[in-house]
Amino acid sequence: MPALAELIQSVRPVSDAWTARAVDRLNRLTKPVGSLGKLESLAAALVRIRESLDIQFSRKVVFTFAADHGVAESGVSLFPQSVTGQMVKNFLAGGAAVNVLARLAGAEVRVIDAGVIEPSGAAGLIEKRLGPGTLNFLKENAMSLENARRAVEWGADVFLDEFAAHPIDLAGVGEMGIGNSTSAAAVFCALLDMPPEKIAGRGTGLDDAALANKRRVVADGLRLRRPNPSDPLDVLSKVGGFEIGQMAGCYIAGGSKRVPMLVDGFISTAAALLAERMCPALKQYLFFSHASAEGGHAEILKQIGATPLLDLDLRLGEGTAAALAMRVLEASAAIFTEMATFESARVDEAESR
Amino acid sequence: MPALAELIQSVRPVSDAWTARAVDRLNRLTKPVGSLGKLESLAAALVRIRESLDIQFSRKVVFTFAADHGVAESGVSLFPQSVTGQMVKNFLAGGAAVNVLARLAGAEVRVIDAGVIEPSGAAGLIEKRLGPGTLNFLKENAMSLENARRAVEWGADVFLDEFAAHPIDLAGVGEMGIGNSTSAAAVFCALLDMPPEKIAGRGTGLDDAALANKRRVVADGLRLRRPNPSDPLDVLSKVGGFEIGQMAGCYIAGGSKRVPMLVDGFISTAAALLAERMCPALKQYLFFSHASAEGGHAEILKQIGATPLLDLDLRLGEGTAAALAMRVLEASAAIFTEMATFESARVDEAESR
Repeated sequence: MPALAELIQSVRPVSDAWTARAVDRLNRLTKPVGSLGKLESLAAALVRIRESLDIQFSRKVVFTFAADHGVAESGVSLFPQSVTGQMVKNFLAGGAAVNVLARLAGAEVRVIDAGVIEPSGAAGLIEKRLGPGTLNFLKENAMSLENARRAVEWGADVFLDEFAAHPIDLAGVGEMGIGNSTSAAAVFCALLDMPPEKIAGRGTGLDDAALANKRRVVADGLRLRRPNPSDPLDVLSKVGGFEIGQMAGCYIAGGSKRVPMLVDGFISTAAALLAERMCPALKQYLFFSHASAEGGHAEILKQIGATPLLDLDLRLGEGTAAALAMRVLEASAAIFTEMATFESARVDEAESR
Repeated sequence: MPALAELIQSVRPVSDAWTARAVDRLNRLTKPVGSLGKLESLAAALVRIRESLDIQFSRKVVFTFAADHGVAESGVSLFPQSVTGQMVKNFLAGGAAVNVLARLAGAEVRVIDAGVIEPSGAAGLIEKRLGPGTLNFLKENAMSLENARRAVEWGADVFLDEFAAHPIDLAGVGEMGIGNSTSAAAVFCALLDMPPEKIAGRGTGLDDAALANKRRVVADGLRLRRPNPSDPLDVLSKVGGFEIGQMAGCYIAGGSKRVPMLVDGFISTAAALLAERMCPALKQYLFFSHASAEGGHAEILKQIGATPLLDLDLRLGEGTAAALAMRVLEASAAIFTEMATFESARVDEAESR
């Protein structure tokens, strides 16, 4: 991989000249102007990214990054930490929700061990272990600054290696990690200067008392670690997670290859926000799959100006919403590419346009 | 077809015993309880409808009913009436948005001429012509009461014939007809006792002045025709449309065969509301594809207690949103059928459930 700074530089802003070309075609298709709503604006966004009117997808990949979180010992999840590693095996065996939804989408699933407590050594796993889980940010920084940078770089490597093996046209980025909605909440609070009460949610299903504890944990962590909101790597090292850093790198690498990248849910959005802060040009390459039912996700999306594609009360992560949202982007590409024009179908146009 | 009253009788209420069986399975799948949100409640709804845990879809069909509307002569659309027939040909040639999105969904498209001005005689068209368009409801009833009943019966025939040829597992119901958002608005206003200002929208793209005229047309039509809100066939005959009546019949026939039916958008919802008023048990068989950007659709859905699956600012009709929403129902069926259980994947369960 090129050095991180170089990679970030290589994410180029998109050009409005391509928007105009897209709109010109959209307005000749057999439908009233604008009547396919977001499918039209998404098609234009894909044209801008690809710099081509050929925006169909051939290879689709969902990347699922897994890691453990030291903060899990502070009672922030219903599930034991053993579940992270067990779910990694479930992903590799094809039995998890992300596998089912990726199959339906015709997408491959790539599973990355970014730092699960117990190495599984399972076949098919991409090993990018930064350690046996992060440290508990209530007691010390979640990871060293060096590991934070390495997380981003290794996550970029995951994408670039996969892309080098065979080009990717559309990617989704999701995760698994017991305790990671707590780390993600801390990242949001730090970057957006918002209180844990507005951000942290019930995760896997906390009751009121456990939710109050989780919010206290986030507040205490922020008070003790004092992450610097204008330094994404500082935030990542102090309260983040290995998979969160790797997802951030994966997005940036996707942008550098002009690939539309689907952000999955709550935790993936925290990674996307870190990535955008490191690389503002990335914004045009990111698509937010859905408004998650987790914590303040819908509010966060509003604040960062992101429009979710779906709103189905999902809060599972893994890449499930990204896999589902692939259909929306595919639909926008399909209408753009396959519909007849007024001229070709000999349909009369509107009387006043 | 059995007589309409008999058909309506044959739509049986669903049973909550099947909901319980569905929830039991959902809670054993490798995910936190409820974390797949609407995909879970939709899976339960499918189980209730099918009375089986096998809810996968094999044959999917989008029915697109087309007809012309006498009220189009009163300046309520940007497009000339010739477009209805031209779009029928576009549907049959596979170049319209509904064709593209149905192909993506793996669904067949069936096109019905319910009463387009000029008979096209095109190959593949299902001919159920009730006349060369309805009459202008500003001047007289849109159709006779006899034709209103026949519209519902013929629409049911369309579904039942197709089903008899080869069973259908999932259907979408959409439409095409210059002027039909005006008829649909009048139907909504009559059935829901709401003012045209809250219901009627810009259709294919009216400007402010044309929208004001459209609302006046709806208000005048309702004042002159005085449809009886408690008699769906009276409403249909006075201000409805041939395709609107046939869609209502199609929904009821689908319910009678226990097939989940996707309601497309604004006009399809007017037909669904008529069908529900004739056959209250139908409610459990209907899925509302999206919140349309047309007029008061989102508000109407709220008022009738319907939750849209998608919200993508679409306002095209044809069955486009239904084709797109098929993926959401398929996703719910897929996770229900294909996911591993905690036991089969050897994943630890939550510590307190």
